[in-house]
Amino acid sequence: MKLRVDLLPHGEYSDTVLVIDVLRATTTAGVYLENGAKAVVFTSDIETALAMRGENVTLAGERGGLAIPDFDLGNSPLEASQQRFDHRTVVMNTTNGTLAAHIAAATGKYVLLASLRNAHAAARRAKALCSEEIAIVCAGGSAGGRAGVDDIYTAGVLCEYLMAMGDFTLDDGARIALMVRRGASDPLEFLSSSGAGQALERVGLGADINFCVQISQTTIVPILGERTEKTLSFAAAN
Amino acid sequence: MKLRVDLLPHGEYSDTVLVIDVLRATTTAGVYLENGAKAVVFTSDIETALAMRGENVTLAGERGGLAIPDFDLGNSPLEASQQRFDHRTVVMNTTNGTLAAHIAAATGKYVLLASLRNAHAAARRAKALCSEEIAIVCAGGSAGGRAGVDDIYTAGVLCEYLMAMGDFTLDDGARIALMVRRGASDPLEFLSSSGAGQALERVGLGADINFCVQISQTTIVPILGERTEKTLSFAAAN
Repeated sequence: MKLRVDLLPHGEYSDTVLVIDVLRATTTAGVYLENGAKAVVFTSDIETALAMRGENVTLAGERGGLAIPDFDLGNSPLEASQQRFDHRTVVMNTTNGTLAAHIAAATGKYVLLASLRNAHAAARRAKALCSEEIAIVCAGGSAGGRAGVDDIYTAGVLCEYLMAMGDFTLDDGARIALMVRRGASDPLEFLSSSGAGQALERVGLGADINFCVQISQTTIVPILGERTEKTLSFAAAN
Repeated sequence: MKLRVDLLPHGEYSDTVLVIDVLRATTTAGVYLENGAKAVVFTSDIETALAMRGENVTLAGERGGLAIPDFDLGNSPLEASQQRFDHRTVVMNTTNGTLAAHIAAATGKYVLLASLRNAHAAARRAKALCSEEIAIVCAGGSAGGRAGVDDIYTAGVLCEYLMAMGDFTLDDGARIALMVRRGASDPLEFLSSSGAGQALERVGLGADINFCVQISQTTIVPILGERTEKTLSFAAAN
């Protein structure tokens, strides 16, 4: 079995894909499902999200870390964790995470959203689904083409779990992720000093980082169901 | 001063760029200049290289690691090190390295070719040229969009030298490169097990890796002079 880590979305996936935008989209998406949402829909753009507004729909997302005008919520997992979303669909659009998921979903067979909070469950679920290859896709600054050390660290955590579950052939990306994971002793300090972490601190959202670094606190894994060109609908698997 | 490492070519460079394809294009380009070539020209495609054939011109390059049909040489630094190229121009085209250099040269002010063999000299030269930012660009599998741990390791070596020469603000990519450099004790073992290293072993060119891992053995740094859309001409700076 192959284990591959793309430090940025690459574009060709044949089997099972774990998408990571730990600060914050894939963390936040998981929290909505934990807190009762029946689905989380990632849209390809803001306009598609706005067009989905309706009964029992919450619009959530960010640009520059801050809530999008006319949306109900920003992209804060901490804020999401303090509310219930029962019977609701949360429609999300973010700068990098929802874009990365769309790239993964263009070809991937199974697409899961992973974060530190669901790392063990996401690894277990991917292992159960895959037949040839697990690809871990780091969103990083997908929109700007720059890798993010926060996502690569998280990929390293997932690789460690997966390697404990079976034999994998590692690609260069997986080796890099493992070296980053092993080289960083304190996830909070490490993610806080990442580019994404510093950007959150600058807009006053540093408390989200403390929330995002909790490792394997939940068994909820968002798994892709219906996909269209502009929408990806995730429901809870656990 | 900013120090940035792009794990793959990104496309926007404002100042000084160090391009790395340690296995093997940027290593080999340096050897041609060490051994007397008056210039090394990176072309954007094979056809441009073939059209430059003429007196005192050597065509060199690879696809799948092996020499291109109708070219004079492959891309082996070991082979290059055993010949003289006095008064000659070596025209090169390779799968990833020459492509990465073209991406860097589309916007970069100063473009240098770096490898382990010229790591200290390349760092010193970049430090002398830059005014705001040094960007280290890893070629990796540019053509296929995958990062290469061999180039990231080399970037880490350059970062270490640069940090000893001055104060830099590091981006996520630079932090990753440093972690990879520090996590790998033996460069030969590490580069041999990289994706690029294994590909060379498979085509019987493993001896090139031993040549490429010699750190700071030369002070010759290829620096970009004339650039056109399809050709980049490098001469020796030291």
